[in-house]
Amino acid sequence: MTAPTSAQYSLNLRVRLDNVPGVLGSLATTIGDAGGNIFAIEGFVAKGPILERDIVVNCRDAAHQADIVTAANGVAGVTVLDHFDRTFRMHEGGKIEVLPLCPVGDADDLSMAYTPGVARVCRAIADDERVADTHTIRKNTVAIVSDGTAVLGLGDIGPKAAMPVMEGKALLFKEFGNVDAFPVCLDVSTAEEVIETVVRLAPTFGGINLEDIAAPGAFAIEAALKERLDIPVFHDDQHGTAVVALAGLRNALKIVDKKMGDVTVVLAGLGAAGIAVGKILMEAGVGAIIGADRAGAVYEGRDDLNPAKQWFAEQTNRDRRTGSIGELLAGADVFVGLSGPGLITADDVKTMADDPIVFAMANPDPEIDPADVEGLVAVMATGRSDYPNQINNVLAFPGIFRGALDAHASDITEHMKLVAAEAIADSVGADQLAPDHIIPSVFDKAVARRVAAAVKVAAVEDGVSRLAE
Amino acid sequence: MTAPTSAQYSLNLRVRLDNVPGVLGSLATTIGDAGGNIFAIEGFVAKGPILERDIVVNCRDAAHQADIVTAANGVAGVTVLDHFDRTFRMHEGGKIEVLPLCPVGDADDLSMAYTPGVARVCRAIADDERVADTHTIRKNTVAIVSDGTAVLGLGDIGPKAAMPVMEGKALLFKEFGNVDAFPVCLDVSTAEEVIETVVRLAPTFGGINLEDIAAPGAFAIEAALKERLDIPVFHDDQHGTAVVALAGLRNALKIVDKKMGDVTVVLAGLGAAGIAVGKILMEAGVGAIIGADRAGAVYEGRDDLNPAKQWFAEQTNRDRRTGSIGELLAGADVFVGLSGPGLITADDVKTMADDPIVFAMANPDPEIDPADVEGLVAVMATGRSDYPNQINNVLAFPGIFRGALDAHASDITEHMKLVAAEAIADSVGADQLAPDHIIPSVFDKAVARRVAAAVKVAAVEDGVSRLAE
Repeated sequence: MTAPTSAQYSLNLRVRLDNVPGVLGSLATTIGDAGGNIFAIEGFVAKGPILERDIVVNCRDAAHQADIVTAANGVAGVTVLDHFDRTFRMHEGGKIEVLPLCPVGDADDLSMAYTPGVARVCRAIADDERVADTHTIRKNTVAIVSDGTAVLGLGDIGPKAAMPVMEGKALLFKEFGNVDAFPVCLDVSTAEEVIETVVRLAPTFGGINLEDIAAPGAFAIEAALKERLDIPVFHDDQHGTAVVALAGLRNALKIVDKKMGDVTVVLAGLGAAGIAVGKILMEAGVGAIIGADRAGAVYEGRDDLNPAKQWFAEQTNRDRRTGSIGELLAGADVFVGLSGPGLITADDVKTMADDPIVFAMANPDPEIDPADVEGLVAVMATGRSDYPNQINNVLAFPGIFRGALDAHASDITEHMKLVAAEAIADSVGADQLAPDHIIPSVFDKAVARRVAAAVKVAAVEDGVSRLAE
Repeated sequence: MTAPTSAQYSLNLRVRLDNVPGVLGSLATTIGDAGGNIFAIEGFVAKGPILERDIVVNCRDAAHQADIVTAANGVAGVTVLDHFDRTFRMHEGGKIEVLPLCPVGDADDLSMAYTPGVARVCRAIADDERVADTHTIRKNTVAIVSDGTAVLGLGDIGPKAAMPVMEGKALLFKEFGNVDAFPVCLDVSTAEEVIETVVRLAPTFGGINLEDIAAPGAFAIEAALKERLDIPVFHDDQHGTAVVALAGLRNALKIVDKKMGDVTVVLAGLGAAGIAVGKILMEAGVGAIIGADRAGAVYEGRDDLNPAKQWFAEQTNRDRRTGSIGELLAGADVFVGLSGPGLITADDVKTMADDPIVFAMANPDPEIDPADVEGLVAVMATGRSDYPNQINNVLAFPGIFRGALDAHASDITEHMKLVAAEAIADSVGADQLAPDHIIPSVFDKAVARRVAAAVKVAAVEDGVSRLAE
């Protein structure tokens, strides 16, 4: 099977065309024959003997881009003047900038924003450091902290190579939550160094979003920072995923008309995200949860469990079921996968209870291909944007931090995460709810607003808001 | 003497006025009688029986602001509805924001800026980390690092209280150098912790601007970071001041028609900035330099010198002159002060060589009041914006970092600083040069452009540019 063309491999061709009938048609045909998908052609007026224009072609991969350039160059009357990869061009120079919120155009501006007036604000903070929460960027700024040890599906690629992801995350924070976020990629060797560094950086920030940090270090880092800092700390890979998965499950259960307390969930993949999903499902009152890793069911007494799985085993699988994931699925209502591709089969799904729900969230390739279970499942969700029901963290973190910052919260509680999941779920109206629409669009900006409002209220209820102080 | 009113203490009064002849006049007169300087009145049309408007009044200090509010409230027909301090209002919510440089409005945008396309850029950096210098914010982003130990004239007020200054500096970086700069205020106890933390943070940034860090820690921190990092490191309190002071001296010498190699400079105050000024003056070829601290001349063999002064003594004062600052000034061509108020007298200045040059740069109060030496000196400069010839770092650091970033420089060399000083000096044209105009305006944006161009060329000449790699 050939990969589809996509925007991530889109190519910009700057071409010179002889202004002769048929040349544009030949070029377009040649690109199409080579498998390129013409996405855009710059508008033009055909004047003069020669035309220059930009053509954007979506390709399958980098080699395919090169093939398209060669093919275009081979068309009679066409010269490729220049070409570039639009993804790399977009990242060139970085994806965020730091801009003034106040003018410095004359001496009066300068005397208020900088010296000597700034000393008055400094003194006010020195006298009462809570002034820093309102009169510095701490009010609205979150650090996106990574050590680059578990970046996307790429693994331990280091802090510099992690930067494009953290910058991308900063875009999403601003776009969807109006939160100012800044990447902090750390050259460190141990979890303890991450903790120590973030504690030292804390005076600068109003919140800490941990990102793409490998387990088990990520657990220790989050726990220590929550303990030591009085600002919100959130490991998005764990809790962002958990919140959106819970939102999806709430809506999926509405479709199949089952109650949270009645269902049995088989959860495959007990890394950082899997454990967090399991935890939020427990808090949401799921009837029974059975975890599994590549070796099969996780149960109390299994002797090869790491501490996180050991904890998980103690909280779940009360019947101490054993066996393979396939065996565990028999009779289960819900499968949640945060594992890897091809983990379960259509035959496994057939053994599940009526109206099975399958969340196959492994990225980029789900635990089972949605095409393989069409007609067999009541609701299917994945982590991918090219299938319905994408479980995408961007529905959660901008609103959660917006709400936490608005509340001047000192922490993000479990309750705040639960109400965030509810707000996401409720963003899909009863009239819109359908098997292929249990999750709102990531581009629906109202979601983050609803999440923020709910999280802020929950922060006050939980006593972690400093608004009233 | 009463302090003058100023913008740093400007007050916004929102007032309700009866629309009766004379009320506005009474209010303005009352504010004036109370010593307030009306800076702005919001435009309005007098319709209806009641008017509401904003009046901006520059005051002397916070107590004066309160007096003005009380006085305005006492005017018949006037009610103060609301009032606020404009400096604090300007700082509210922080002074910078982090904004996207690329769109994330639809699925195609997202697939290029974030997943899955971002993984291509991450992989490219993992394969060749130089790609991070062009395709992340490292290309244009500088950390403004402080531990809050020596903030303005306020001393060790801590990292949170230092934030407003670092944010202000970020404004200036962007406004004058188009450099993205981000504050990094650190909660640390030792110079070693600053070094360690900045080394860990270095993957995120293209340069490090050290700021408001107390000596002698600041020396150790700068030296260690220059050694350990392959990006420019610059302690602005030292080198920014030094560069602008040298620029000023170059132009002052043109006015008195003396040569750098012929003059004797007495340098009072050998903290971080003083040592740096002394060093750049040596490099610029000043004939003779004699340093002094509160105890008088610094000379080789004086037994109470710290290591920095010891080093300085070895490089200067070849005649091992001793004595007080007043004694040293006899016959000197130039006085440069980075010390404190009232250090020298008019009588001291009278003993200097013909056409004496006095740079009294202590802040906020200079070593000698310019009014006291009017007519006695050929050229006078201070650190203050309310006298002519302000030695202001903002003329240096935006252009220096702009040039260093443009050159992909691995370091900021002494030569790069010298050409920066030249570019600043040359920004005052021969036709503009005058005793009260040896330094360009801080609002002249052409200065940073000239500095950047010169610094970039010098970086290439010095072999610290990675442009050609």
